[in-house]
This record gives sequence, C-alpha cells and structure tokens, in this order.
Amino acid sequence: MDIYQLGEFGLIDQIKKKFPCKKKSSLLGIGDDAAIINFHNKLTVVSSDMLIEGIHFDLSYFPLKHLGYKSVIVNLSDIFSMNAIPSQILLNIAVSSKFSSDAIYEFYDGVKIACDEYNVDLVGGDTSSSVSGMTISCTAIGSVDKKKITRRDGAKPNDIICVSGDIGRSYMGLMILQREKSNFIKNPENQPELDNYKNLIEKQLRPKARNDIIEYLSRYNVIPNSMVDISDGISSDLGHISQSSNLGFKVFEEKLPISKEVRKISEELNTDYLSSALNGGEEYELLFSLSPENFKKIDKKESNISPIGFFTHNNKKTLVCKDGREDELKSFGWKHFN
Amino acid sequence: MDIYQLGEFGLIDQIKKKFPCKKKSSLLGIGDDAAIINFHNKLTVVSSDMLIEGIHFDLSYFPLKHLGYKSVIVNLSDIFSMNAIPSQILLNIAVSSKFSSDAIYEFYDGVKIACDEYNVDLVGGDTSSSVSGMTISCTAIGSVDKKKITRRDGAKPNDIICVSGDIGRSYMGLMILQREKSNFIKNPENQPELDNYKNLIEKQLRPKARNDIIEYLSRYNVIPNSMVDISDGISSDLGHISQSSNLGFKVFEEKLPISKEVRKISEELNTDYLSSALNGGEEYELLFSLSPENFKKIDKKESNISPIGFFTHNNKKTLVCKDGREDELKSFGWKHFN
Repeated sequence: MDIYQLGEFGLIDQIKKKFPCKKKSSLLGIGDDAAIINFHNKLTVVSSDMLIEGIHFDLSYFPLKHLGYKSVIVNLSDIFSMNAIPSQILLNIAVSSKFSSDAIYEFYDGVKIACDEYNVDLVGGDTSSSVSGMTISCTAIGSVDKKKITRRDGAKPNDIICVSGDIGRSYMGLMILQREKSNFIKNPENQPELDNYKNLIEKQLRPKARNDIIEYLSRYNVIPNSMVDISDGISSDLGHISQSSNLGFKVFEEKLPISKEVRKISEELNTDYLSSALNGGEEYELLFSLSPENFKKIDKKESNISPIGFFTHNNKKTLVCKDGREDELKSFGWKHFN
Repeated sequence: MDIYQLGEFGLIDQIKKKFPCKKKSSLLGIGDDAAIINFHNKLTVVSSDMLIEGIHFDLSYFPLKHLGYKSVIVNLSDIFSMNAIPSQILLNIAVSSKFSSDAIYEFYDGVKIACDEYNVDLVGGDTSSSVSGMTISCTAIGSVDKKKITRRDGAKPNDIICVSGDIGRSYMGLMILQREKSNFIKNPENQPELDNYKNLIEKQLRPKARNDIIEYLSRYNVIPNSMVDISDGISSDLGHISQSSNLGFKVFEEKLPISKEVRKISEELNTDYLSSALNGGEEYELLFSLSPENFKKIDKKESNISPIGFFTHNNKKTLVCKDGREDELKSFGWKHFN
C-alpha cells in the first residue's frame, strides 16, 4: 500500500500495535503528546542521533530492515558507553512519497528486532513526509546508578586503554559496498560479489552494540574510569577522552585488534590497513580505560577485550609503531562539514 | 564563516559555550555520548518532533532565529500538555553547504531565547551535513509528580472542555505569508504588506507554549482529567482525547475563541473562518477537560481560558451551530501522507 493511502495516523496505529511496552519503567508509550517513564532513584541518560539518506546511508545497498536495526543500535551504543542500560527509544522518521508502506514496515521490522534484542521499548516519536529521501532521528533513554556512570572526562594517568572486539571492519565493509555499487553502475549485468566479505559488510550494515561488555565488566565489579563508543574512528574517539580528561596517551600499533580480513582486503583495495583501522568510524565497539588494579581483575580473553596502551600525564598523543618509532597519532575520523 | 570551514567539532564547541547547564537536574550536558539527568522520585516525560524544510517551514519567509525558537516551543508544548515541566532538550540539526555558520548561529540564537524563556537546558544532540535543505529534530524531557500527570485518555463524561487563548490565528498567519510570497514571486518589486497581520504572523512564526496555563491551574490546585496541545487543529486534537477516552462530545460554535482578526482576514482571503479555526494546526494552545467541580474553582477571565463544550457518554462528536443545528464535527487537521 502507498504510504499516502495509509495516512499518518494509520501508520502510527500500525507502529503502536507492533511495539507494545514491556519495560516496567515505560508507564506510557506511543500515542500521547509525550511518553512517561519511571526511573525511581536512578540517573536518566539520554542520547540522540540523526541519519540522513545520501549522507549516512545509501539505500541502493542498505536494506531497510538493516537500516531500522542500525538506527537503534547507534543510539543504544551511546547509552552503553555511559555504562548505563537503555530502556526506551523515540524514533522520528520522514519519508518521501517514493516509499511504500511495505518499505516503512520493513524498516520498522529492523527497529523491532533491535528493540527485542536489547530489551528496549519504542515509546514515541514522529512520522512525517519529506521533500526527498529518508531522514531518521532516534533518541535513546537509559538509566544507571550514580556510582557506575562512566564519562569521557574520567581517565587517569596510567589507566590501561582497552577496546572491545576489533576495529576497521565496518569501514572496509563500506569500501567494499561502494566498490560493488560503482562496478554495478558501470556494468549492470555483473552481480555484486559479496560472499568473501561477509564479516566486513555485516559489521557495516548490522553492527552490534556491546552490551555484553557492560555486563561482563559489571560481573567483575569493574567500573571503567572513562568510556566512549567508537563512532568517529578510534583515533578521533581516543582524542575525545584524552582532551576531556586532559591527558596524553601511548598506543601500541602491535596491540591494535585488526583482523586478518581487514589487512587482506586493504591490500586488495590498495589502502593502508592501519589508517583504515585507526580512522574508520561506525565500529560501535567500546573504548575505555581501566585502573591497573581493575585491569588485573578481568579475564581479557573471555571477553574479547584488547589492551592497546595507557594514558599519560603529558598531553602527547603517541602511536608506538612496530619498529619502535614513535609517531603523533593524528585523527582523520569522519567529521561533518569537513 | 562557511560551516565547512568551522567543522563539526568547531560548531559543537561553539554551541556548548552558548548553552551552559543551569538546571540542578542537568548533571552532564553537551559533549559526551549521552546527557545525564537526575529526576529523583519524579516521572520522566519525553517527546520528540521533526521539522523539515519544505514540509514544516519555508525559509523564504521563516527567519532562522524564529525557526530555532519554534523548534523548541513545539516540543516544550508537548511536555506542558502532560502537565509536566520541561527541563532539558536535545537538538539534532542537519544542514547543507548553502548555510553559513552565521546562519546556524542565528538559528541557535532562537533556540537560546526559548531555552532561557522556558528555563530548559540544551544538553545534547547531533549536528550533521545534509544533501539539501535543513532538518531539525528536537527531543524535550521533563518531569512531573505521579499524581499530577494528564493524559489524553483520562477525560470523563460531563467534563467541561476548555481551550487556552484563541484558535485559527496561526493558520491564518501562514495563509498570509504564503500569499505574500506568491505575490512577491509574481512581482519582486512589491514589498510584502505584513503590518496589518502582525498578530497572525507572530503566532505562526513565534508561537508561545502555554506554561502560564499549567502554572495557573497548579495555583488553583486543579488537575485536568485530560489534556493535549493543539498541534494538528482543534477538531483533530479533540478527536484524539475523545477516541482515547472513548467518549463523545458536544462543542458549541458560539463558544469557540476566534478573534475578530481571524474572521476579518478569512473574509479577505475568501475562506471560511470556522473551518480555519477548527482545522488549523500549530496553535500550541492547550485543550483540556475539567470536572465541573474543578471548573468552578478557576477564574476563567484571569487566565484566558474558554469553556467550549463538554464530553458525553455516547460516541457522537457534535458541533452545535449558532442556529442550534447539530453537525458532526469532522476533523480535517493537518496529517502527513494525506
């Protein structure tokens, strides 16, 4: 059905049916002027992000279901990076008349999967028409005990810098998708070859938010001194902690968790794998710092956490290369208006 | 300066300086992955809205400062309509390269005025580039005692239906602006004549959220049984309460607060003033229902509140015309995808 046949209130009704509230804290969900949330004595944590067709995603290779999923994930990731647990989201979408109601439902199917997987309720938002293309704005709300919150300004000298999972995959996935798109435009009879790049593409199209790391640290009673998620690229996000905490750092090239795949495909694409791993955004891994005492407490292997360096008193941002040479780590992460 | 010279993080720094946190509940504002809010034992109320150039506003007659102001107001209005007090907002904007940094600062000047006027902190959001035009998404957060909250599903039979201020002005203001724009396109040497329409245009470009009504009712210890703000048009918004509360209503034409100006300009524009007043959106007046006992308590004149009818047991939506004839009140309010 055409979205214009269904109408705004018809669409909202359908969304409301699809997203019944499940959390105890969601007192009122979709359908009133505002949602009502009850957090008792905890701190409320709120984050909001916008995704715009042609800037943040390209629908020619981004399936709508994955887009719905990712729209939620990028916001939940911000809540996890405060060491908080997300519980509700509000989602605004604007679409032009080129979208069918089935396309919108597919998008919301992805939203639904993310909500179920991460146990959050969709409690509000706005549906609107647009002049062209699709725009998504998501706000995530979570809560946390006052003592557990992790900010980017809390890093201490000698803190061990840790990163979850591995880096560079999402960016290489994007490079592959863009290459196959441009090949397809040149020769529409060529089928895109994506099988060899599954792990890279999946990280780009369907990233995970690292709630498992939050739960893992909590099991060991470990609270990071600082934490951010890697959305702009690890060099840029490390710079955010460094600047906010007024510290320098030393990071070791050989300690960076970069998969064989990223190295191999970088060669294939004729790009520098180290630069891709350091500057590629949209990883949604957690980057955090632990006191040496806390670092000893955790089992790094079990949790897939890599120590990559430490924070220092001085303000130098240093990358120690494999050959022992020390370079200044400059960030070339994704910035808008650049 | 070009927004692309300033860069994303440069822009965020400027915004951060402009919006220091003032509320006790704003523990952490702009600059981390999420904002942190402390509401103690109150309920949290959250609402989010999106405004898109070419759909919700036309920059050829909408000054950016007013747009910044209105972007905040439309969301605060949603929080007030839950009988809650807003305390924080998050604002996402996406702009194309046609916008200078001065233009963006002008927009944020309007945001700042609204924040100061309504005593709310800007605590987060996202700044992004766009393919074309400007998109704004605002999320407002507030809090309220459990006993004071007003939902749209709480209306009771015989409740007196009340509306603050007057209706139809915002819509007529929009009609005037569109007429002057089309005259200007036809003949660019004509200066738009707007002096006679100041009250109408101001309501369209710089609406107020009715926190004064919330404070007024609170002074009289009166809690409405139901409340919404008039964003879609009074007939549509009345329909929302009616449907959610499973009640009908009787509304009296002669009781509707429609200014002489709206009647006069409707005639000039050859439109029906009653239809404009009933279906025109973006009024941001409050529409609420009071038990007859509570209604007796308040001084209607002092507060500029008009009783316009009452809710009924049956599901009939009735407009009683001036001549005593009864019509079904159908809503033709603004709906997207229609």
